Amino acid sequence: MSNNTSCDICKVVKESKNPVFDTNYWIVLLANDQAYLGRCYVSLKRHCGDLSELKNEEWKDLFKVISRLEKSVKTSFNAVLFNWTCLMNMAYQNSPPNPHIHWHFRPRYNHSVNFSGLVFQDPEFGHHYAREHERSFEVPSDIQNKIIERMQNS
Amino acid sequence: MSNNTSCDICKVVKESKNPVFDTNYWIVLLANDQAYLGRCYVSLKRHCGDLSELKNEEWKDLFKVISRLEKSVKTSFNAVLFNWTCLMNMAYQNSPPNPHIHWHFRPRYNHSVNFSGLVFQDPEFGHHYAREHERSFEVPSDIQNKIIERMQNS
Repeated sequence: MSNNTSCDICKVVKESKNPVFDTNYWIVLLANDQAYLGRCYVSLKRHCGDLSELKNEEWKDLFKVISRLEKSVKTSFNAVLFNWTCLMNMAYQNSPPNPHIHWHFRPRYNHSVNFSGLVFQDPEFGHHYAREHERSFEVPSDIQNKIIERMQNS
Repeated sequence: MSNNTSCDICKVVKESKNPVFDTNYWIVLLANDQAYLGRCYVSLKRHCGDLSELKNEEWKDLFKVISRLEKSVKTSFNAVLFNWTCLMNMAYQNSPPNPHIHWHFRPRYNHSVNFSGLVFQDPEFGHHYAREHERSFEVPSDIQNKIIERMQNS
């Protein structure tokens, strides 16, 4: 459903091999950095850069994605709350900008979680997410796959 | 429609005198800090702390609010893009937490805007919003009212 050859997100959507799940309109991919365990990107499958231009059925479907994803991480890792952001700033570093709607999903925890030999912590719980914190916590692909599997089986 | 006496956001929703606009389910209030000119809070009128628990008609209505608000700030001040976030972290600093769904709306600009004798700038355009930047830019209520008026008449 992607259609813009110069868009990095279209490329990722098209080439992704192991989504957490997808629907008719959205695809949920685990982020490489897992400082906030279960952190995902939720991307629209078609190329569109403006929230206001979403179709009604895409907006309706997004609500189902939110509910399903939150439930999955709550069941899997006992996340307490969830931060959702739709920013698209980086697309405007290029000229012309070529934004593609995607949401950042960050589960937040008031407790540490032991999973696959790693300890996941959220020292900023109750406060804004810390981008420095997450940049330092890229996890190997085998652990990423285990996180995905756990989320899929929750 | 608010119903939780210990919730600060219910109180704000109930007592607000000058919203940018409201609908059956949501109310749009201008933030005191206007580092990102047109920055608003979009709050659910009823007390509910979990996105997954929104009613279908509330979710549907939110889409209309997003479109209307973005159009208003684009027309008023020529904003380039918009950052939307739903976080609710602070509610979890209290025990028990008592979250109330609200969205942060930050218009972003690749140009400075002169309005009512003030110059609004977005030096971080193309990057994540800077919370330090906005904390330092509270504007007087008469200017806030002019911003609201401009947005209402756009």
